[in-house]
Amino acid sequence: MQIGFIGLGNMGAPMAQNLLKAGHEVKVFDLNTQAVETLKASGAQPATTPKEAATNVEYVITMLPASQHVKAVLTGETGILAGIAKGITIIDSSTIDPVSVKAFAELATQNGNTFVDAPVSGGTGGATAGTLTFMVGGTPESYEQVKPVLQAMGKNIVHCGDTSTGQVAKICNNLVLGITMAGVSEAMALGEKLGIDPQVLGKIINTSTGRCWSSDTYNPFPGVIETAPSTRGYTGGFGTDLMLKDLGLATDAAKHAQQPVYLGALAQQLYQTMSTQGAGKLDFSAVIKLYRKKGDA
Amino acid sequence: MQIGFIGLGNMGAPMAQNLLKAGHEVKVFDLNTQAVETLKASGAQPATTPKEAATNVEYVITMLPASQHVKAVLTGETGILAGIAKGITIIDSSTIDPVSVKAFAELATQNGNTFVDAPVSGGTGGATAGTLTFMVGGTPESYEQVKPVLQAMGKNIVHCGDTSTGQVAKICNNLVLGITMAGVSEAMALGEKLGIDPQVLGKIINTSTGRCWSSDTYNPFPGVIETAPSTRGYTGGFGTDLMLKDLGLATDAAKHAQQPVYLGALAQQLYQTMSTQGAGKLDFSAVIKLYRKKGDA
Amino acid sequence: MQIGFIGLGNMGAPMAQNLLKAGHEVKVFDLNTQAVETLKASGAQPATTPKEAATNVEYVITMLPASQHVKAVLTGETGILAGIAKGITIIDSSTIDPVSVKAFAELATQNGNTFVDAPVSGGTGGATAGTLTFMVGGTPESYEQVKPVLQAMGKNIVHCGDTSTGQVAKICNNLVLGITMAGVSEAMALGEKLGIDPQVLGKIINTSTGRCWSSDTYNPFPGVIETAPSTRGYTGGFGTDLMLKDLGLATDAAKHAQQPVYLGALAQQLYQTMSTQGAGKLDFSAVIKLYRKKGDA
Amino acid sequence: MQIGFIGLGNMGAPMAQNLLKAGHEVKVFDLNTQAVETLKASGAQPATTPKEAATNVEYVITMLPASQHVKAVLTGETGILAGIAKGITIIDSSTIDPVSVKAFAELATQNGNTFVDAPVSGGTGGATAGTLTFMVGGTPESYEQVKPVLQAMGKNIVHCGDTSTGQVAKICNNLVLGITMAGVSEAMALGEKLGIDPQVLGKIINTSTGRCWSSDTYNPFPGVIETAPSTRGYTGGFGTDLMLKDLGLATDAAKHAQQPVYLGALAQQLYQTMSTQGAGKLDFSAVIKLYRKKGDA
Repeated sequence: MQIGFIGLGNMGAPMAQNLLKAGHEVKVFDLNTQAVETLKASGAQPATTPKEAATNVEYVITMLPASQHVKAVLTGETGILAGIAKGITIIDSSTIDPVSVKAFAELATQNGNTFVDAPVSGGTGGATAGTLTFMVGGTPESYEQVKPVLQAMGKNIVHCGDTSTGQVAKICNNLVLGITMAGVSEAMALGEKLGIDPQVLGKIINTSTGRCWSSDTYNPFPGVIETAPSTRGYTGGFGTDLMLKDLGLATDAAKHAQQPVYLGALAQQLYQTMSTQGAGKLDFSAVIKLYRKKGDA
Repeated sequence: MQIGFIGLGNMGAPMAQNLLKAGHEVKVFDLNTQAVETLKASGAQPATTPKEAATNVEYVITMLPASQHVKAVLTGETGILAGIAKGITIIDSSTIDPVSVKAFAELATQNGNTFVDAPVSGGTGGATAGTLTFMVGGTPESYEQVKPVLQAMGKNIVHCGDTSTGQVAKICNNLVLGITMAGVSEAMALGEKLGIDPQVLGKIINTSTGRCWSSDTYNPFPGVIETAPSTRGYTGGFGTDLMLKDLGLATDAAKHAQQPVYLGALAQQLYQTMSTQGAGKLDFSAVIKLYRKKGDA
Repeated sequence: MQIGFIGLGNMGAPMAQNLLKAGHEVKVFDLNTQAVETLKASGAQPATTPKEAATNVEYVITMLPASQHVKAVLTGETGILAGIAKGITIIDSSTIDPVSVKAFAELATQNGNTFVDAPVSGGTGGATAGTLTFMVGGTPESYEQVKPVLQAMGKNIVHCGDTSTGQVAKICNNLVLGITMAGVSEAMALGEKLGIDPQVLGKIINTSTGRCWSSDTYNPFPGVIETAPSTRGYTGGFGTDLMLKDLGLATDAAKHAQQPVYLGALAQQLYQTMSTQGAGKLDFSAVIKLYRKKGDA
Repeated sequence: MQIGFIGLGNMGAPMAQNLLKAGHEVKVFDLNTQAVETLKASGAQPATTPKEAATNVEYVITMLPASQHVKAVLTGETGILAGIAKGITIIDSSTIDPVSVKAFAELATQNGNTFVDAPVSGGTGGATAGTLTFMVGGTPESYEQVKPVLQAMGKNIVHCGDTSTGQVAKICNNLVLGITMAGVSEAMALGEKLGIDPQVLGKIINTSTGRCWSSDTYNPFPGVIETAPSTRGYTGGFGTDLMLKDLGLATDAAKHAQQPVYLGALAQQLYQTMSTQGAGKLDFSAVIKLYRKKGDA
């Protein structure tokens, strides 16, 4: 298939590579021309504008940092909507707020196109390995239509419901994630201070009602889980600034929806403190440092 | 074996029954004489004081609501220490603060006895079925010694470390539990308001990084997990007032240990609000009601 | 002077009336034609578009609910910038986020105009009485220039610094206000439950280090301050939804500035809970209801 | 008058000195014999036990760090109750929890004595100058009786209501104080980051609805209030660890009274973080450091 791909960052670049590997023809655009060159070397067709990338293709995929970038790429003079043929579907894999998704879908509809939100989980590792999870918001027909395309880049393609529910699913999951990680951090640090061996405590929690991904797979205390970022100095993994962005989306969405989010808003401040103190690039499980003495391993 | 058992409440009574079923001889005491009569009918020997229950036995087990009750039963004129033979081990399965445990262990040592903390998880269901988890704090020798006794009442007998670490393990696990349940409640209620089907959202979280016992086993949104209290009107299960008690122990322990517990302290206020509003007897997953409109199922 | 005035709501209408009383000629616009008619009856000149209201005047004043309204009124096809003469100053008295202020000021500058932020405090009472406080962000020259105009509507005209610092001052003050009111509510409700006469407690706090406007002027406990909204059923005053809007601006500004705001974010959830439960129109001091039993006076 | 005084720490020593200055005969006791010697040099009569200090006096005053010390001094073998004559009133100026006060009052009554709680505010400066505020809990008769004694040490002697309401008043006031100080810190740090001059912001808040003692008298931002601890490196003043103790009393009292205290519990964690990071001896207004970059003045 012919696919336009816009946004070749840490996530977008390997995703586009996987589309090429699956045999698709891919037109790529990014403001970073070096990123475009790299994809070109792998067989992609370079485009000089989003409009060009969206012309004469069967699908357009966007993978961008934030809502304003999607808007610019979509509606600018040399944007997607200026080049795309009627009937073509735009798949946005960026993580953005649900309100913007609805607005973009409205614009697409007015232009004769379909806009599907399909944010991902799985990180850069999943993007490279082609094992991402896609959370898809759109009609059942749109879901069936985009599924084969997304399967070239991911393992689980989940239909979440109507337009914007892909973002809702991602935001709500990461809201739980941000809270559980900080909660496990509090408990592990408290246990350590009260004299229990953190390795023992980790095992007990992981077979009890406190069990959660933040403890049994990604435990913030070094050494409890050998493969977790905490055991390698909080490098790699899912950065604190990315968690902060997602909690920001969650509390914003809650504000618009007039829903209280007590723990989410508090967790956001904890990660904000980490980021303000210069730890924004560390894995988000480094939030445990707020609870432990300086200099602890 | 000859075992003295003090405290025949919702948990203690079925635990004592299981000791009898396993063939032990059990002397029982409770201020509630009706509870004593019921155990007597099952073959237990009634005692009129803790002292009497602790006389001529090989183990003494206590299962009481709070620290002050353990203290009274241990040190009163007609208390355990007044009747117990030297060398006998006292197993306290109450959930109390680690600081008190250390003080009680000191008193026991002065009296020529050993005090082992062994709080449980598994609720009244586990107590009746004999499938409790015991979290044991004491020397490796004490652990090996009490293990066979506890196995008559539970399935998992976990050694947590030195004296008081059984309580530390329980408190830390329930700290995570109280936080994750409120966190999942926020996310499920937010998702509902943002238009995703809660059943779909539950499934996505349960296969993603937000996965936790509070979501995949005990989800607070009605219908997501058929066997959860939320699906039967928040009846049965682990009461809000019990969660509130455990979070109180956690924040108290943190205060003494000079550790911050941001999310734990906030979660405590949320359950306190539920209790103050009259919902203290509902399962603690009813905390989701704070986030949903009145009258929602 | 000739003044264009856009936005004739609960605040804007009496402000425009005061400009008329002071002898200014005022061209008014609002989407609500009834509001325009009322001002016309008082001597104002009606305009059918913001552009018309901004044509042939010496100042343009806007008083609108939110950032998007200011943007629309400023940049629309029939907006202010389409009609205003070069060199004229636009005074925006809306309460909006500082980031938008800077963007609007930039647009104004490109159009040959000056944009001054001048949000107010004092409520509808102050707007009617002409006793508002204006917090002005702009150059010292702009401040001196707009001061005489604002004095027709307010008593204190405070220069806060460069563009957008008027909004910063208002947001930061109301951040403190939202926190102190909820804090006083917690303390008054706790004191009541612990058995002290709330009237006595109020007096003690008001002569001690807990002294604050939220206690000595606007105490949330009924009867402590006779003139406070709490004493008249939480009617009148500053609505919960307005406080919620301002705390939303504060936490948004903090997010953009990468600053943690722990108490502000939590206070926001408390007022959100009030609003979600249907109390958004009550004075914000009604937040004490979250801490007292239902049915308490 | 003949007065027994027990507890000669930073507060108690100058209070006892003021009693001597007022012409009273004072018998003093402290575990710290050096403190006793110093008072002896000023004319006090040294006692070797609390019992001795309480024998043949008309009043007994205690000024101790925490509830357990009051209990020990009151009920020990060589404690107050063992030496005091029937009918004599005990005045406890320690800051302790209201529940303990009631228990102590009950013990005193059984012994034929009256126990009055009279915690103070005003710090070591007020203790030395004799300008403390005493918050008195007891019957109107007890209040009238102790007033002349307290006037030798303080300026304001406030009757708060029945036994324990003195503590309730102090705890509730300091709950507000701890919250407002952290709230003002958030707002000042946010304003600084958003570009307003903190001196200007302080002035605006202090004449607006955010006005409070924590801003207009004790502003945490250096330079806003010349006489505040913030302006002299957060030295002197009211230590973070003391604020932490009082917030601990407040949240404990709330737990026992089954009252939620959202902001109080969160503020407690903020001061706990300061203390854990080694800043427990700094004035509590140093909490603003949590919101500002390291190295800022």
